[in-house]
Amino acid sequence: MFGHVKDLQFEAKPDGPDAAFARRLQEILGGKWGEMTVANQYLYQGWNCRLPGKYKDLLLDVGTEEMGHVEMIATMITRLLENAPLSLQEAADDNPMVAAIYGGSNPAHFIHGGGGALPTDSNGVPWNAAFITASGNLMADFHLNVTAEAQGRLQVARLFNMTDDPGVKQMLRFLLARDTMHQNMWMAAIEQLKQDGLEEMPVPDAFTDSKEFTHAPEPVLAPGDPRLYDTTPDLADDLLDDDAM
Amino acid sequence: MFGHVKDLQFEAKPDGPDAAFARRLQEILGGKWGEMTVANQYLYQGWNCRLPGKYKDLLLDVGTEEMGHVEMIATMITRLLENAPLSLQEAADDNPMVAAIYGGSNPAHFIHGGGGALPTDSNGVPWNAAFITASGNLMADFHLNVTAEAQGRLQVARLFNMTDDPGVKQMLRFLLARDTMHQNMWMAAIEQLKQDGLEEMPVPDAFTDSKEFTHAPEPVLAPGDPRLYDTTPDLADDLLDDDAM
Amino acid sequence: MFGHVKDLQFEAKPDGPDAAFARRLQEILGGKWGEMTVANQYLYQGWNCRLPGKYKDLLLDVGTEEMGHVEMIATMITRLLENAPLSLQEAADDNPMVAAIYGGSNPAHFIHGGGGALPTDSNGVPWNAAFITASGNLMADFHLNVTAEAQGRLQVARLFNMTDDPGVKQMLRFLLARDTMHQNMWMAAIEQLKQDGLEEMPVPDAFTDSKEFTHAPEPVLAPGDPRLYDTTPDLADDLLDDDAM
Amino acid sequence: MFGHVKDLQFEAKPDGPDAAFARRLQEILGGKWGEMTVANQYLYQGWNCRLPGKYKDLLLDVGTEEMGHVEMIATMITRLLENAPLSLQEAADDNPMVAAIYGGSNPAHFIHGGGGALPTDSNGVPWNAAFITASGNLMADFHLNVTAEAQGRLQVARLFNMTDDPGVKQMLRFLLARDTMHQNMWMAAIEQLKQDGLEEMPVPDAFTDSKEFTHAPEPVLAPGDPRLYDTTPDLADDLLDDDAM
Amino acid sequence: MFGHVKDLQFEAKPDGPDAAFARRLQEILGGKWGEMTVANQYLYQGWNCRLPGKYKDLLLDVGTEEMGHVEMIATMITRLLENAPLSLQEAADDNPMVAAIYGGSNPAHFIHGGGGALPTDSNGVPWNAAFITASGNLMADFHLNVTAEAQGRLQVARLFNMTDDPGVKQMLRFLLARDTMHQNMWMAAIEQLKQDGLEEMPVPDAFTDSKEFTHAPEPVLAPGDPRLYDTTPDLADDLLDDDAM
Amino acid sequence: MFGHVKDLQFEAKPDGPDAAFARRLQEILGGKWGEMTVANQYLYQGWNCRLPGKYKDLLLDVGTEEMGHVEMIATMITRLLENAPLSLQEAADDNPMVAAIYGGSNPAHFIHGGGGALPTDSNGVPWNAAFITASGNLMADFHLNVTAEAQGRLQVARLFNMTDDPGVKQMLRFLLARDTMHQNMWMAAIEQLKQDGLEEMPVPDAFTDSKEFTHAPEPVLAPGDPRLYDTTPDLADDLLDDDAM
Repeated sequence: MFGHVKDLQFEAKPDGPDAAFARRLQEILGGKWGEMTVANQYLYQGWNCRLPGKYKDLLLDVGTEEMGHVEMIATMITRLLENAPLSLQEAADDNPMVAAIYGGSNPAHFIHGGGGALPTDSNGVPWNAAFITASGNLMADFHLNVTAEAQGRLQVARLFNMTDDPGVKQMLRFLLARDTMHQNMWMAAIEQLKQDGLEEMPVPDAFTDSKEFTHAPEPVLAPGDPRLYDTTPDLADDLLDDDAM
Repeated sequence: MFGHVKDLQFEAKPDGPDAAFARRLQEILGGKWGEMTVANQYLYQGWNCRLPGKYKDLLLDVGTEEMGHVEMIATMITRLLENAPLSLQEAADDNPMVAAIYGGSNPAHFIHGGGGALPTDSNGVPWNAAFITASGNLMADFHLNVTAEAQGRLQVARLFNMTDDPGVKQMLRFLLARDTMHQNMWMAAIEQLKQDGLEEMPVPDAFTDSKEFTHAPEPVLAPGDPRLYDTTPDLADDLLDDDAM
Repeated sequence: MFGHVKDLQFEAKPDGPDAAFARRLQEILGGKWGEMTVANQYLYQGWNCRLPGKYKDLLLDVGTEEMGHVEMIATMITRLLENAPLSLQEAADDNPMVAAIYGGSNPAHFIHGGGGALPTDSNGVPWNAAFITASGNLMADFHLNVTAEAQGRLQVARLFNMTDDPGVKQMLRFLLARDTMHQNMWMAAIEQLKQDGLEEMPVPDAFTDSKEFTHAPEPVLAPGDPRLYDTTPDLADDLLDDDAM
Repeated sequence: MFGHVKDLQFEAKPDGPDAAFARRLQEILGGKWGEMTVANQYLYQGWNCRLPGKYKDLLLDVGTEEMGHVEMIATMITRLLENAPLSLQEAADDNPMVAAIYGGSNPAHFIHGGGGALPTDSNGVPWNAAFITASGNLMADFHLNVTAEAQGRLQVARLFNMTDDPGVKQMLRFLLARDTMHQNMWMAAIEQLKQDGLEEMPVPDAFTDSKEFTHAPEPVLAPGDPRLYDTTPDLADDLLDDDAM
Repeated sequence: MFGHVKDLQFEAKPDGPDAAFARRLQEILGGKWGEMTVANQYLYQGWNCRLPGKYKDLLLDVGTEEMGHVEMIATMITRLLENAPLSLQEAADDNPMVAAIYGGSNPAHFIHGGGGALPTDSNGVPWNAAFITASGNLMADFHLNVTAEAQGRLQVARLFNMTDDPGVKQMLRFLLARDTMHQNMWMAAIEQLKQDGLEEMPVPDAFTDSKEFTHAPEPVLAPGDPRLYDTTPDLADDLLDDDAM
Repeated sequence: MFGHVKDLQFEAKPDGPDAAFARRLQEILGGKWGEMTVANQYLYQGWNCRLPGKYKDLLLDVGTEEMGHVEMIATMITRLLENAPLSLQEAADDNPMVAAIYGGSNPAHFIHGGGGALPTDSNGVPWNAAFITASGNLMADFHLNVTAEAQGRLQVARLFNMTDDPGVKQMLRFLLARDTMHQNMWMAAIEQLKQDGLEEMPVPDAFTDSKEFTHAPEPVLAPGDPRLYDTTPDLADDLLDDDAM
């Protein structure tokens, strides 16, 4: 069960509007590795975790924090979308900056969203729940969670270099710090799983069929093998005369 | 910013496993009108609401409650997925009930989800964020919210008639009650918006271009008009001889 | 069974080309609340309506009209796509207006669509049929239809303010008028359903299980409850030393 | 602009309900090669056709007919969905036939659709507009239209062999006949395009850059080439000891 | 089983970077008719082909070649993405060319892809496998393959006219030549299928139900029929007074 | 550039048909963590890798091997789809096993695919390219690759327990062995990246803004905080009387 308070986890305001950067920020909100993904992924992993206790609690607690990051970024996008040039006429007055914003912003922010954040990536493609995985195997999923935090922090660091706005940069620094902490945390949790004897690598440890192949197979296709690719297959050679090709 | 406690908003356990019904419950979790939709829809509407105060608070509070419904249904699905027949051999022993469960369940629950809930509808199609709308116009969105609660309650009532399990029925009764309350609440909020002078129907009230057509146009295509559909168009008549048709 | 005549329901031509606005118009053609949605939604609701007579007829008639709106907007988009700047070289001659059109248009209009309308939204995301609902409950669906007309009219009004082209504005005025009429019509149809004794709010009226909870449950999480969110969960505290965070 | 009359293009009723076959029929309604695809594809090709006259008319007329096929199949599905077993308890009474129907039907037909047709394929995946193409080149698109009719007729013929219901078979015979006629028609239209001097194969005829390569390139990878695939790449050999593999 | 060598099938480098054209090139990489589609389509058709021999081999060989085209275009896109303007500040210095690139490029190339190609179309919509068909009927599928090559060559020809870069044009010429060759090849393969007595048009040849309708049905809706469309349906007339419309 | 030979990397045939298991095998072919994902992911990571040499080669080589796994599984599915019960009449003869297969198989395998493999998951949802990531950061992507192999091996192990067919089990053992080898290989590659000084954890190592927050922020919402969730928000209390709730 969830509760909500009005304060943002971290409060930051942009120094000025920038609809083109608002479009870019959408990637870490509703993109594949954005905050909607980590929030929902950790929560589903937590709900599906059949082992009560520290791992289940950790997943639900961190997932709940990430919901607050969704909120922070959505709020920032809404603030950046003020005063955007909406028509070509506004964009036309010999001002390349305005032309760049007009071309680089997402018109759906204004037609569909009324100047608010959209649950989409930076190209307006809606977030979908196939982005998340809750496999029931904590080791496999904690590795995915390390990845998710790494991909997320990478994107935040790139966005940090795409803007000069101090207020936006401040929010991105906060997110970078949380992603650092969470990367380290999931790696530590992997070690904890091993220490607790719950799972080992390779996943799944429990598969013990004695007949698993323990070595790589001999390659069927060895160097010098004459059975090779030819850009004009035999049938094509027969079917086509030279002029057609 | 969000908080989480371990208790479910309403605690219910199934009397026994039923993987086929677990598949069906997914519709109100990750289907178009499921709990993921209302939770995210109300939260985005709240975050994008530029008017601080009671409407913004209402949206965020109800969205937060719906997150708890996602949790309840996910938990119930996980409980229903115990002991399902996983192989055809288990399903084969002259038992039509087991055959029905095997055929009627979702194999991805076991291969992909490890016996946990999936963020999908009853056919395994992932939830996607195009299911939600936050238009920036409270009147348009409150009407959508009435619809969402009505469609949701309709589905819950149908599911209520698809199971005999007392524990499952108890949870569905709870959800029906909340959907009743929320339908009434959004209808009341529509009236409140009007009383506050914020918006009227038709939406958007603010559009006041004097040249809007105020009457329906004359129909171009009137009864008796000879310009009508013929299942064999002229060119097709020319192109084809009778035998081909 | 359908017929088609060549005339548009309302004839309008743009005063000049504008590929960037053509992209924006796509939202009301192939977006979530565009004309493809209302056309298909009303038709499916009509086909699935098991009660012959006035409601079924209304749905099919209005759905058929909306097919004509799809046609009008598709035709307008095709007309707006003439003479667009296709290469960076064309966009480069010290002309911010051309740069804005180049950046603000959808390249798929020219590569994929050959200068014609696409069945997508303003970001090139294809329309999909999950946008429509035909639940078999007329009350739930008529409420959705009110919403659809409200969201649609809202978007048309916003587009009206994003262009100066008189011909385009004339077509938008026509669509605004039809959306006004249809909003009023679905609201009147809701009243008619009640008068006919077919359905009441909350939907579904027919659910009469005596054990439905009639009051909201006591909240599990009350003010002052110590079981609250902490951004550094216990396990994380254990797992990480200060420097890592 | 479109009109609609209540009669189906061809009237057929099933002899009895069959929810499992109703699910299968969805493939030719809302699947990739179903009637929603051909209807929308021909209409968009018609609207985008810049050449007025017989080709544009043909596209719009046949597209309009296909809308009537959508209606026929949707109606048939609704009729087949009567009296389906909705709960496991109904499916359990030692009756393999009922178990097969329960397992083989689509639960969304009852939870989401209220016993009506859905705009999806046989697995409940929503139809999407990326299934259609209107490229602006009639020759390319007429070839696609031949394909669409061939794929569609193939599916109808397969469905014909999956049911014994005489009424359903009668409707499928009608659709087979129309698909035969349309396959022939689009092939004839291809010939007509050539005769009219509008386009030739290969598409696009108009591309006349003198430097197009007129022969296939020499294959870079010739028989005996030592640069070949080895299932254990060099780095992997270095990285892993034998036991790990 | 597949092998890979480092050489591209055809080596070409752009004369200079152009992030806006890189976005456009994505259409023939990950768009509906791009190289990912033909590669996967031919491979699946080959794997599913139950008849060993020349047709199966042809499909697998050409599919394998197309994998090399995916590689060529992905490599070219990566090369075009160098040195793009990433922030509005870079795009602002009174330079419409830079503004056009900033607006016309895809920000996901830099945030998500790190300056590499994405498996998406020109609008950033991910490629999906519904783009491919392998129906098990070679005649139906070879017709689709002709179409795929025609649509693909059409798009390449259009892109050829959207750039002045000699290196890019050289690669496009190569692709045009391969598409010409493949269009001709699939058309010749259709003739071969007929000569081998394997399949005829209309597809499927094998359907021989004697009761198939051999003529088009009488149209139900004939010229002069009074049952026609009226933009204000009867119920709407009753429900609404004039002012409301 | 790619080559292809007819041999499978590992040859295995089922002892008998099983259309229901064929549906389940689709998960590791076209599901989120199936072979299409790893094949395309490694290839895109390789093509986008700007550093020539061992890492780029490794990615392309392993990606090429995974293409051969796609082929193996597609071939196995085609073999399992023989002799499936296609109609309810076949499924009805008092045989729960046949009923289970009828209900548990995917009808699209027969209507759409002609008895061949489909590029979809176990529920018929098409594979899409958003499943893959190539971020341009090798450390982030190698962690994802570990995850992909772990999730894949987990699914194969689960499928191993869902069938008794010796031929199918043999193929799954082969895949398990390759997934074990690849998990180990990507973990070793992560260590290699560190030894080569190319990247460290947390990703991205290169971000060195001195103002990154180095500690977690104080939680805004502390235990005992009175600003908490109440299932009946204030406005709702005002709007609704008790009976309505």
